[in-house]
Amino acid sequence: MISVIVLGTGNVGSHLIDTFLNAKDIELVQVFARKKEDLQPFAKYVATTTSVENLKKAAVYIIAISDDAIPAFSSQLPFTDRFVVHTSGSVSLDALQNNGYKGIFYPLQTFSKHKKVDFSSIPICIEAERKEDIYVLEKLANSISDKVFEIDSKQRKFLHTAAVFSNNFVNHLYKIAADICKEHHIPFEILHPLILETAQKITKHTPSEVQTGPASRNDIKTMNSHLELLSNHQKNIYKLLTQSIQKEYGKEL
Amino acid sequence: MISVIVLGTGNVGSHLIDTFLNAKDIELVQVFARKKEDLQPFAKYVATTTSVENLKKAAVYIIAISDDAIPAFSSQLPFTDRFVVHTSGSVSLDALQNNGYKGIFYPLQTFSKHKKVDFSSIPICIEAERKEDIYVLEKLANSISDKVFEIDSKQRKFLHTAAVFSNNFVNHLYKIAADICKEHHIPFEILHPLILETAQKITKHTPSEVQTGPASRNDIKTMNSHLELLSNHQKNIYKLLTQSIQKEYGKEL
Repeated sequence: MISVIVLGTGNVGSHLIDTFLNAKDIELVQVFARKKEDLQPFAKYVATTTSVENLKKAAVYIIAISDDAIPAFSSQLPFTDRFVVHTSGSVSLDALQNNGYKGIFYPLQTFSKHKKVDFSSIPICIEAERKEDIYVLEKLANSISDKVFEIDSKQRKFLHTAAVFSNNFVNHLYKIAADICKEHHIPFEILHPLILETAQKITKHTPSEVQTGPASRNDIKTMNSHLELLSNHQKNIYKLLTQSIQKEYGKEL
Repeated sequence: MISVIVLGTGNVGSHLIDTFLNAKDIELVQVFARKKEDLQPFAKYVATTTSVENLKKAAVYIIAISDDAIPAFSSQLPFTDRFVVHTSGSVSLDALQNNGYKGIFYPLQTFSKHKKVDFSSIPICIEAERKEDIYVLEKLANSISDKVFEIDSKQRKFLHTAAVFSNNFVNHLYKIAADICKEHHIPFEILHPLILETAQKITKHTPSEVQTGPASRNDIKTMNSHLELLSNHQKNIYKLLTQSIQKEYGKEL
């Protein structure tokens, strides 16, 4: 049994609280939030507090607040020799300013506050300064997820950047596709199966193995006919990504 | 019962043949390919020929060959007043040079030759010159798919361009993410659940509703720390897509 306190009830915090409350090897000791109303949904199930002075004792303190607030908030924690982790993908371990031990507990997924989350398939990236703390995080992470990875702060920065490409930027390309459809009265749902299949494919193959399209086969006629259809802004993105694909697959313009 | 002949046994052709053989309202009359060995897998189940002179009679002739070959091949068809369609997303109806009636039967999905395909969830975009031919295609498409859309040649060009953004370009962003992971000894599978969830989200929400990340919240600190990690080539793509997201969501640099 690992005792845990979650500090923060935002997107990640509230999903962690729900999951810990239902995990059999975890004792959720307390939940902290600055505002009383943010604690209200959890008050029935677990002890809560709005004051860091009233924090109870636990094996792990998980700070799930916005990236920028981590240094100042962690410096206010009124205890030494406790183990404090944050959940951010883009903030280093050093951002934690608590007196004591530091670590990372980073669940890599895109969360929506009101959509239920199944943590068992969400990768959790862990890191700690001390070997013994890694074991604690490993046990904690394994009790809610099947996918636990030890990733250091440097790797995590790269991983977060890779996540921006495969989530934020990908979603923006969906947006451009949806815009093109909307402008020409084409239901965007026609593209849904293609989008899902494209994503599913890379769980079985490397992206290079399944790259298709006019850029990878150097089909200049089709590419030119596409460019004619696009706004200047879309054209710039089309050209740059096409060049990048051609560079990768060794075909010259 | 609609009688059909499929001309071509490539990726799209072979999946159509398999599906038609198992569809109850369709009579697959014959399969054509230039080379005898390409017909061999189907010869047990259906009449085959390597000569256009020997083509039998059918309500619809479906040409499933490479885009560039469509005009020359269709001009060789030795009959008038028959209904011929092609399956390409990027070639217009006029590319068909047969003497007779013309149409399009475009299944919008990414096919791999050896992966079994369930056509029922694949959108089929149809077009024909004559109203009565639309009815035939509609019936044909409905007998294998739940998603049939009437899309004209102009719309289809835009749709194909949108498909390039949401499939080819998206897959290339996966490639960049995979490269970043590989270089830093991070298992790419950590990103699989994020990639799948990002794709699934747009079947429930518009891409704009679910856009997240440093660009959309104008988090300059995180963006700069990402840019420091990237190669020049990756940096150009990061910058252009970031600018595009910022333009879209109204945030100034």
